[in-house]
Amino acid sequence: MESTRGWAEKEASADPLAVFAKDFLIPEGTLALNGNSLGPPAAAVPIALSNAVRQWSEHLIRGWWDDGWWDAPERVGDRIGRLMGAGPGQVVVGESASVQLFNALTAAVRLVPERRVLIADAGNFPTDRYLAASVARLLGLRLVETSMNDLPGALARHAGQVGAVLCGAVDFRTGELWDVPGLTTAIHQAGGVSVWDLSHAAGAVPVQADAAGVDLAVGCGYKYLSGGPGAPAFLYAARRHHHALDFAVTGWHGHADPFAMSASFVPADGITRARTGTPQILSLLALEAALEPLEAAGMAAVRAKSLRLADYLFALVADLDSVEIVTPRDPHRRGNHVTLRLPDAVAVAESLARRGVIVDERPPDLLRICLNGLYISWTDVYDAVTHLREVLR
Amino acid sequence: MESTRGWAEKEASADPLAVFAKDFLIPEGTLALNGNSLGPPAAAVPIALSNAVRQWSEHLIRGWWDDGWWDAPERVGDRIGRLMGAGPGQVVVGESASVQLFNALTAAVRLVPERRVLIADAGNFPTDRYLAASVARLLGLRLVETSMNDLPGALARHAGQVGAVLCGAVDFRTGELWDVPGLTTAIHQAGGVSVWDLSHAAGAVPVQADAAGVDLAVGCGYKYLSGGPGAPAFLYAARRHHHALDFAVTGWHGHADPFAMSASFVPADGITRARTGTPQILSLLALEAALEPLEAAGMAAVRAKSLRLADYLFALVADLDSVEIVTPRDPHRRGNHVTLRLPDAVAVAESLARRGVIVDERPPDLLRICLNGLYISWTDVYDAVTHLREVLR
Repeated sequence: MESTRGWAEKEASADPLAVFAKDFLIPEGTLALNGNSLGPPAAAVPIALSNAVRQWSEHLIRGWWDDGWWDAPERVGDRIGRLMGAGPGQVVVGESASVQLFNALTAAVRLVPERRVLIADAGNFPTDRYLAASVARLLGLRLVETSMNDLPGALARHAGQVGAVLCGAVDFRTGELWDVPGLTTAIHQAGGVSVWDLSHAAGAVPVQADAAGVDLAVGCGYKYLSGGPGAPAFLYAARRHHHALDFAVTGWHGHADPFAMSASFVPADGITRARTGTPQILSLLALEAALEPLEAAGMAAVRAKSLRLADYLFALVADLDSVEIVTPRDPHRRGNHVTLRLPDAVAVAESLARRGVIVDERPPDLLRICLNGLYISWTDVYDAVTHLREVLR
Repeated sequence: MESTRGWAEKEASADPLAVFAKDFLIPEGTLALNGNSLGPPAAAVPIALSNAVRQWSEHLIRGWWDDGWWDAPERVGDRIGRLMGAGPGQVVVGESASVQLFNALTAAVRLVPERRVLIADAGNFPTDRYLAASVARLLGLRLVETSMNDLPGALARHAGQVGAVLCGAVDFRTGELWDVPGLTTAIHQAGGVSVWDLSHAAGAVPVQADAAGVDLAVGCGYKYLSGGPGAPAFLYAARRHHHALDFAVTGWHGHADPFAMSASFVPADGITRARTGTPQILSLLALEAALEPLEAAGMAAVRAKSLRLADYLFALVADLDSVEIVTPRDPHRRGNHVTLRLPDAVAVAESLARRGVIVDERPPDLLRICLNGLYISWTDVYDAVTHLREVLR
């Protein structure tokens, strides 16, 4: 690894994933380094949307069957599942992440109804914290917020009472990746049920949800999955729980026989019971199309390259005295965005944006930089740091 | 009104709304008479989707501000509000109808927490019934299901205990329109809070939500609003309730200061607090574009023509002995689809579909026919009945 552009160019020319950049619509001269907030559009997306409108205009209501719209939540769910180590039939896609999380959390609590403490990651994305508070209030639980570092301590302090435990797999501020298998085991040993928010992990980190023994999980579709602004979110539930899943937001799409229009709710078998209202098909088919490049490149290959890109960035910024690397260096302890601490992060981000380098700031002093190996190259990292160096000077 | 095609052609040629049919993408030779299930695509929709992908690719995350995505739930909400007699700032669009209903219902219950009876329309669409049961269970309420005809009786029987009352404005089976202003007044007199499902009314019947004193309402975007399969649904809340609305599904988009990323939920002022997760922008912008022809034609004009088209259908089927008209003839007592009872409705609907006449069946003996004056013509009605006559022969 050398801090010259020539070295970056050589790496880029030898990069087997370099071909995938052309599958994304990113303006010439723009470095899209905020895919942790909103992934750029895949070139397949506008084609999928045109197809969807054509299906709708030609087949009208029959599109639900003739064009596979009805099965899309499970079909796209299976595809997302493969990216996160989940076998088929355990993921549905459709509602927003907030709704999926509300449902996952209520279902988790109801799996262990006698357990009255809900433990929640205090560093989680705000929506997760608001929803944990809302579910605790609705179900009369005691909410205990904890730092992830102290999660084992919190589990011990509430021994015998721990029910649902809600954690973010990757800290949205720092990019730290938590030990999903180890903490899931600890939650199980405490008698709890794990609910992981994979929003910053799905499409970035091969989570191995099945192997880790994850109980329930949710994640959004618009970050590393590039499904578009507000893309549908997913809900994962391990097969061993399906028969007992009892969701709060029930809808006819989750009914065992939806077209019977029956008076009371009878949940469908399998993960289908996690479906609720009618899914937003245009957004869902856009998300489905967006998965193609990631599937073609392979989750493991993208992860490996992304980690190496971040190592390269760490090396390039090492001599910048005003920059502190917040994200752990250990590749097992980080997700796919890296966070730098530096003065005036907002002004720096604005200056970078004027140069076409799009990063994400968290006031007052954090910059988040997403190096998604699927469409970011070695020269992009070199150029981004060159711009950062000039801006800081 | 005469039962000849010549008369229908003359009416069609004098119809000031006839120009709007070309704003919809419907295959040549197809009569799309199931707009009560899924409205056909407006020609503006694929253009709006292309624009949205262009915005996304050019502006990336900045699309949320530069392209007005962030304000879309309230902006599109105001436009839908105008179609239903709701002043600005009282409608948001985004989640599915099931989620909007769950939230509206929990908020309604919490407006009158001492009232422990939840009354629900037993003839409502199944999802509404499932959600009423779920909310009653979550909040420890007694659920009382009633026929709409007996709603005043139910209110009287539970005097002093009536809290939230959930009703469908238009019966999804029969097309009967209930007396929204009168029943809302009755609910208020009983001390209750009305929650109306307007899925079969929005874009079909000028509901006059404000004038009727409706408390909360929801409705889907894919029927008369033609927003596409599973289009985002809306939630209406009367301004007088905004300060007290306390939703169960909270999300950062409903926070008073979403980018403060604060630890606890502080609801935004106004209807914005009804926002939850990140809205599915592609589907939402498609819905927005779909509203254009209806706004241009005018809700009142479309309603008047649709009623006359139904009168024409009633006249044309009068001599068909095996056909019973289920929908009330009184224009004040019907929505915008008409329901016919006849033997073997499923087989009849299939035969009609083979002739390009797309209607909607409810087994075993109901046909639902949606005569949306926005894109259905007098000759369409004549031709549809001619086909029905031939199929029944």
